[in-house]
Amino acid sequence: METKIGSMEDRLPSLNRVSDARPVLPAGFRASAVHCGIRVRKSKLDLGLIVADRAYPAAALFTSNQLLGAHVVVGRESLAKSGGKVRALLVNSGNANCSTGEEGIEDNRVVQRALAELVGCAPEEVLFMSTGVIGARLPGERILEALPGLVNLANERGLGDFATAIMTTDLVPKVRTLAVEDKAGPPFRVTGVAKGSGMIHPNMATMLAYVLTDGPADDHPREMLKRIADRSFHRLTVDGDTSPNDTFLLWSSQHAEAATHPKSRASWSDSHDDVLEHAVLEVSQELCRCIAADGEGATRLVTVQVHGAPGEREAAEVARTIATSPLTKTAVHGRDPNWGRILAAAGRSGIRFDPNQARVWIGEADVFSSGRPHPENEPAAHLHLLNNHEVVLGIDLGVGSARAEAWTCDFSADYVRINADYRS
Amino acid sequence: METKIGSMEDRLPSLNRVSDARPVLPAGFRASAVHCGIRVRKSKLDLGLIVADRAYPAAALFTSNQLLGAHVVVGRESLAKSGGKVRALLVNSGNANCSTGEEGIEDNRVVQRALAELVGCAPEEVLFMSTGVIGARLPGERILEALPGLVNLANERGLGDFATAIMTTDLVPKVRTLAVEDKAGPPFRVTGVAKGSGMIHPNMATMLAYVLTDGPADDHPREMLKRIADRSFHRLTVDGDTSPNDTFLLWSSQHAEAATHPKSRASWSDSHDDVLEHAVLEVSQELCRCIAADGEGATRLVTVQVHGAPGEREAAEVARTIATSPLTKTAVHGRDPNWGRILAAAGRSGIRFDPNQARVWIGEADVFSSGRPHPENEPAAHLHLLNNHEVVLGIDLGVGSARAEAWTCDFSADYVRINADYRS
Repeated sequence: METKIGSMEDRLPSLNRVSDARPVLPAGFRASAVHCGIRVRKSKLDLGLIVADRAYPAAALFTSNQLLGAHVVVGRESLAKSGGKVRALLVNSGNANCSTGEEGIEDNRVVQRALAELVGCAPEEVLFMSTGVIGARLPGERILEALPGLVNLANERGLGDFATAIMTTDLVPKVRTLAVEDKAGPPFRVTGVAKGSGMIHPNMATMLAYVLTDGPADDHPREMLKRIADRSFHRLTVDGDTSPNDTFLLWSSQHAEAATHPKSRASWSDSHDDVLEHAVLEVSQELCRCIAADGEGATRLVTVQVHGAPGEREAAEVARTIATSPLTKTAVHGRDPNWGRILAAAGRSGIRFDPNQARVWIGEADVFSSGRPHPENEPAAHLHLLNNHEVVLGIDLGVGSARAEAWTCDFSADYVRINADYRS
Repeated sequence: METKIGSMEDRLPSLNRVSDARPVLPAGFRASAVHCGIRVRKSKLDLGLIVADRAYPAAALFTSNQLLGAHVVVGRESLAKSGGKVRALLVNSGNANCSTGEEGIEDNRVVQRALAELVGCAPEEVLFMSTGVIGARLPGERILEALPGLVNLANERGLGDFATAIMTTDLVPKVRTLAVEDKAGPPFRVTGVAKGSGMIHPNMATMLAYVLTDGPADDHPREMLKRIADRSFHRLTVDGDTSPNDTFLLWSSQHAEAATHPKSRASWSDSHDDVLEHAVLEVSQELCRCIAADGEGATRLVTVQVHGAPGEREAAEVARTIATSPLTKTAVHGRDPNWGRILAAAGRSGIRFDPNQARVWIGEADVFSSGRPHPENEPAAHLHLLNNHEVVLGIDLGVGSARAEAWTCDFSADYVRINADYRS
């Protein structure tokens, strides 16, 4: 799995990147996974563990939905109590432990305490997360019985199994590693692992994303996480719904620093922090693209480019509106270079611009500009949609110079089938 | 076509309503339609006219999209110039006359002037509206050639043809008449005619809604129109997209008043104005239900009920969010009593409530309350979704006492097929 470079390249002139042929855990982490029987489907791995040498700094962003999975409630408390230190991350698929009342929260705590005892840390240094069907109690006994085996199995090569264990309707595991060789410090790795096949599917899926690194820790990891989320997961949509369990976690072992630079964190230059943030952003955007490409029923990964906006926030808002439009997404599914739907979606985004000054492109082909369509370019646009798995829709608003991208997938009849047929 | 009563009944104690077996034009209006050849499909009617005895008061709300069809630009100007008087309304289907630049606007004006000359009025007293594919020039000659025949054909029984002529992807014409017998004044009629099969489909469809009445005129028709739109068309969604051509027009001949109460408008009581507003609201809500029921690919008309909100605005916002959720709509298509998706959609609406205090129902069956699901009631909820063409999803937020409804349809694979396959 080669890491794609994309638009980040310009912003990272000082960063030498080596794409690993095979995603690996950064130093200081081990992983494992088992099938403990939560999911009915035969023998799929359904419980995954990542455990660190000791408790390391971490920061998390959780869903903005008011309906909260139990792990969001307990996870927030635990991170506050531990001062943002995490020793172990346990994740089950097949059951979201959401809308399960006080019992669901207690189920989470029981597993948290048991795992803390096994690895030898405080309970609040363990995060236990869940994804899957909501409204059903967790099979707590099965999980508790599986814990000793999971802890014993954990090793440096367990990342692939972990990525598989957290999948629900995902068709493929989503893992990326970026190896960074930085002039200002020792080399380090940033590894992301995620699951999610709709932006959110409260009843069966959920977006979980974990980024681990042995690079330098940041003084304000939560602020960095927010900046990164604004430029990655907040620009990703499959179906516009959001989940009660969404979680984005950054976890840093600081191993590279410890190994080769035996000096205090504070001595790292600002520019080195920037390198870390850029590397985490790049891995996060890669995970977004993986999730969009594996969206339920998807046949195309769609990158929406917005140029000429008054600011990045406005550009992102227009990009998100286009990426969410069912008409735009069905047009891509039909390989239809339908610039009218792109322009109309931008027109309802709430960001002011003059459609007569806008330019719309599909792939390399301009299909609308100066208030007029360009039917002569539509065949090229159609071929772009027909022949590529990754397609580009773009609009220049003609107002300013800011840009942003958003990622989505096409909207197919299979999406409806998957979501209409599931559960009952 | 019997007019449905619904929740308006409680609010209209003084209103005696007689549902007409057959929708009719109110006094003072005539209508006609022809096939002039805009639409490729053989002989479907594609140009419709409603003409009044003389120029009557009218008010219109147009799309909030920044991409504007030519008729929105010219229509706004005309209503301002005429002081809100309309003599004739001409509508074509098959071509939206949108993104056609200055030529498109001039095309609209040429037809407007020609029709004004034929009926003998000022050009600004003619509204000419378009719905259909965007980005293509209108076949102006065909429309101009058809005008004399249309004017000659116009008669009191032409409403059905007009309703058919404005259809695009609609499967059925949408017309409703409410006959009002009011203690405070003479009887009158309110007749609504609409088209639209997605909330908006910028490339082929659009929502157009016209409500005609021979009841008393209102002193502030535009304000009344806004209040009515807030409680009707602004609570309707098929796919969440909005159109460059959306139009809602209210047009009043004041004939009932003229015929039986030869006194000035000002002598009408306030309560009589209320009766008119309630009657127009009821017809408008009926049109919303017609449009939702005929949504592209729809098999169910879905009414979303929100109770227990702090205010009607908040109730409507939650109702709209649930009605827009693809996961809720696909669940209805799968006849799945999926309360988790309803609760999660409400949870992301931006309106504050505690999900543990909320109650969710499907049909008559409570499926979630006090923080817990009620699996024992899910079979009844499933049967409600399975056996009814009109289904109800409800949530009580447990915060206040305000209520609102929104209307949508289920989300089927046919929606995707219709919108993926169209055009190219």
